[in-house]
Amino acid sequence: MANDKKLVEAITSMEEDFAQWYTDVVKKAELVDYSSVRGCMILRPAGYAIWENIQKELDRRFKETGVENVYMPLFIPESLLQKEKDHVEGFAPEVAWVTHGGLEELPERLCVRPTSETLFCDLYSNIVQSYRDLPKLYNQWCSVVRWEKTTRPFLRSMEFLWQEGHTAHATAEEAEERTIQMLNVYADFCEEVLAIPMIKGRKTDKEKFAGAHATYTIEALMHDGKALQSGTSHNFGDGFAHAFDIQYTDENNKLQYVHQTSWGMSTRIIGAIIMVHGDDSGLVLPPRIAPTQIMVIPVNQRKEGVLDRAYALRDELSSRFSVKVDDSNKSPGWKFSEQEMRGIPVRIEIGPKDIEANQAVVVRRDNREKTIVSLDNITEAVAAILEQMQADMLARAIAHRDENTHEVRTWDAFTDVLTRKQGFIKAMWCGERACEEAIKEETGATTRCMPFEQEKLSDVCVHCGKPAKVMVYFGKAY
Amino acid sequence: MANDKKLVEAITSMEEDFAQWYTDVVKKAELVDYSSVRGCMILRPAGYAIWENIQKELDRRFKETGVENVYMPLFIPESLLQKEKDHVEGFAPEVAWVTHGGLEELPERLCVRPTSETLFCDLYSNIVQSYRDLPKLYNQWCSVVRWEKTTRPFLRSMEFLWQEGHTAHATAEEAEERTIQMLNVYADFCEEVLAIPMIKGRKTDKEKFAGAHATYTIEALMHDGKALQSGTSHNFGDGFAHAFDIQYTDENNKLQYVHQTSWGMSTRIIGAIIMVHGDDSGLVLPPRIAPTQIMVIPVNQRKEGVLDRAYALRDELSSRFSVKVDDSNKSPGWKFSEQEMRGIPVRIEIGPKDIEANQAVVVRRDNREKTIVSLDNITEAVAAILEQMQADMLARAIAHRDENTHEVRTWDAFTDVLTRKQGFIKAMWCGERACEEAIKEETGATTRCMPFEQEKLSDVCVHCGKPAKVMVYFGKAY
Repeated sequence: MANDKKLVEAITSMEEDFAQWYTDVVKKAELVDYSSVRGCMILRPAGYAIWENIQKELDRRFKETGVENVYMPLFIPESLLQKEKDHVEGFAPEVAWVTHGGLEELPERLCVRPTSETLFCDLYSNIVQSYRDLPKLYNQWCSVVRWEKTTRPFLRSMEFLWQEGHTAHATAEEAEERTIQMLNVYADFCEEVLAIPMIKGRKTDKEKFAGAHATYTIEALMHDGKALQSGTSHNFGDGFAHAFDIQYTDENNKLQYVHQTSWGMSTRIIGAIIMVHGDDSGLVLPPRIAPTQIMVIPVNQRKEGVLDRAYALRDELSSRFSVKVDDSNKSPGWKFSEQEMRGIPVRIEIGPKDIEANQAVVVRRDNREKTIVSLDNITEAVAAILEQMQADMLARAIAHRDENTHEVRTWDAFTDVLTRKQGFIKAMWCGERACEEAIKEETGATTRCMPFEQEKLSDVCVHCGKPAKVMVYFGKAY
Repeated sequence: MANDKKLVEAITSMEEDFAQWYTDVVKKAELVDYSSVRGCMILRPAGYAIWENIQKELDRRFKETGVENVYMPLFIPESLLQKEKDHVEGFAPEVAWVTHGGLEELPERLCVRPTSETLFCDLYSNIVQSYRDLPKLYNQWCSVVRWEKTTRPFLRSMEFLWQEGHTAHATAEEAEERTIQMLNVYADFCEEVLAIPMIKGRKTDKEKFAGAHATYTIEALMHDGKALQSGTSHNFGDGFAHAFDIQYTDENNKLQYVHQTSWGMSTRIIGAIIMVHGDDSGLVLPPRIAPTQIMVIPVNQRKEGVLDRAYALRDELSSRFSVKVDDSNKSPGWKFSEQEMRGIPVRIEIGPKDIEANQAVVVRRDNREKTIVSLDNITEAVAAILEQMQADMLARAIAHRDENTHEVRTWDAFTDVLTRKQGFIKAMWCGERACEEAIKEETGATTRCMPFEQEKLSDVCVHCGKPAKVMVYFGKAY
């Protein structure tokens, strides 16, 4: 049938041009659209629904650890942003400034929040008095703005959606525990729901968050061998508490500074889903995060009874899954391509002959495996197929990550990896910032993290030959 | 026991000073806090949790009508805002302007969205081509900014949270149908969930939304007799479609302009919950919207077994309700006051004697009615009590609204109502804007709406004596 939509055009192949493939997929799967505002993206229904599922699942996991949601103002007065020295230095160059309200010029500029540490500190300095008020475990879901020069959908945009958790604790130990706890919440979520394995570790001082004592990160490897920082958790110690005078009376009636953390995950993670699982037919969504898990596609749908059987199938499966029927006038082949482009985990093909044989054909999106399933126990059969698909996707992502992780012991091997292929490089490092900067300068690779799981690959720094302090994951990154 | 929190101080009584009572309640029930940003409020956990419940319930109702969620940019370029003449005139005086990004001045100012009609129109002009692309039924949950001079928590603030639905249709009839459909969604939600009865009607031309062909509204009466506009639904006709060139090819291959609607409900509705149901002890939350529905308060909690029984009760009730135990060191009386201030629908008192008698005392927040309930079937008993409470709250709100709705036929009666008492005034109106403005000038009362349920109270306008065109609800409004 003729169709005026251009969804199912050939997209650029991944091997030919990965960046173009990515752009094609986000556009043709209708995840985003560009807007009239430079660098801001529009999240269309198919894209926003993925974010809604991420929110639902993360929010549940946060709340299980005692976190409560709040909402803080969009604007930060310039004087408030300036209270913590490192923080303002890190963010001032990339914020948007509001200078006029209505027809009047403001007495003080307001920045559009790039992150909300300063606002939470301001609140905590007002509402924390006693040890009985601690801990405070607040989180907010909102958008933030960072004035980026070059932007790419999900990966880097002027405005993006995220959650930012901000906690205040009585002791340094408790703050450190919370920082690690939330990093683990992120890593578990990515592995269990998004089928993306993560390397957990600590950022170097050069790469840590502006104002943080320590920044922890989860790092994932994309299909093209580049790394993506996927979530971070910061321990601020009592630095912000001093800057904002957040003190409480302890059990001995002594004034103490609180210890704080913050942690965030953003729509950027949708970029990871695309670049870890996608293929040359488009998006591939893990069943546990897919807004639509099953597309029922009637074959020969004008034959009497076919559409009705398809609807009945949808109604039956809807008790456990999110299901749609594609009853448009397009050809089955066209519908298959659309379902594949959108990454819907399985399609169920059902036509007159299937109905006669009391069966349907279930096709997995990830490996196109077909299973003929009896209509009598189709819910159970599809559940098993989706579960297997979820597990297989994680296994494949782990295998790809491992195959593309290179232990190197010499500088030649280091540069060789980056010229011949991509991937994570595990190597020893001296711990000096100048050396880290030289590595970046010479190769474009950055320290992704100092992983929690340390190994001793050699005694000396891979770059400068000085005594090694720590093993680092290096990589080129988005 | 000593306690350093000041939650349970006496609050101003409603009769003495309703405005102060309101401010006391929002602060002491810890719904909001003021921020360092003039006119912006902080939604604290108790306040945000109400909004989360409103979101969950409204979102479900929207999606049942086919609505899909999206996310649009926070910023609107000045040139885009100016495309629809009436719209820009209505909003330009009250928007915040971003003039600098990072260290550079922008070539074009961006306004922080006060509402997103222009952005949705821009999107629709790109993605709507054929009648097969229609209708578009999009909604977003976000915050908007309006540069207000005077602000009050929930009722009027510079930034507030809301949802804004924006739809595009092939025909004028379909757009009108959708406009009314969403108004009904709002009204049903308010009545069924928030226990607030609404008057549904149409705004006069003077009061309608900037750029709309028709604005419909739901209006509620607060405890003090003032009206609160609680949700609006606009039919834009094809006005925006002409301004933004949103055309589609119809089934006969002819170009047609789309017809559009928009509709919104905001955190303002939380102000209505407070002002309709609250009393001199604080907040009273309808059971169906309360984040915590039951507070179990152990009496004599140091006696062995009491706390354990309280926790067991919580675990049992948690299968159906949202339940907490107040196991702090405060006295039971103090805990009762806190539970009342926070508006938690019922408390369950349980002490050693209750346990011995296999019972507990359930106390309703709204009328303080006590029921002794056997522990054997407490879930069912509490369910019935909560249901009755929800129904009684709605009945009381309807009774209050009706008692304070005055049919007037003369101008003397009109002014008499406003000086002696407050409330809705039902009166006939000539339909002329000058007369409407004179009424406002002379009395401070505005037209709330032209209700769908029309009556003919007399033949002439209550103010000018010219032939009457329509019955109007007048009132002083927040």
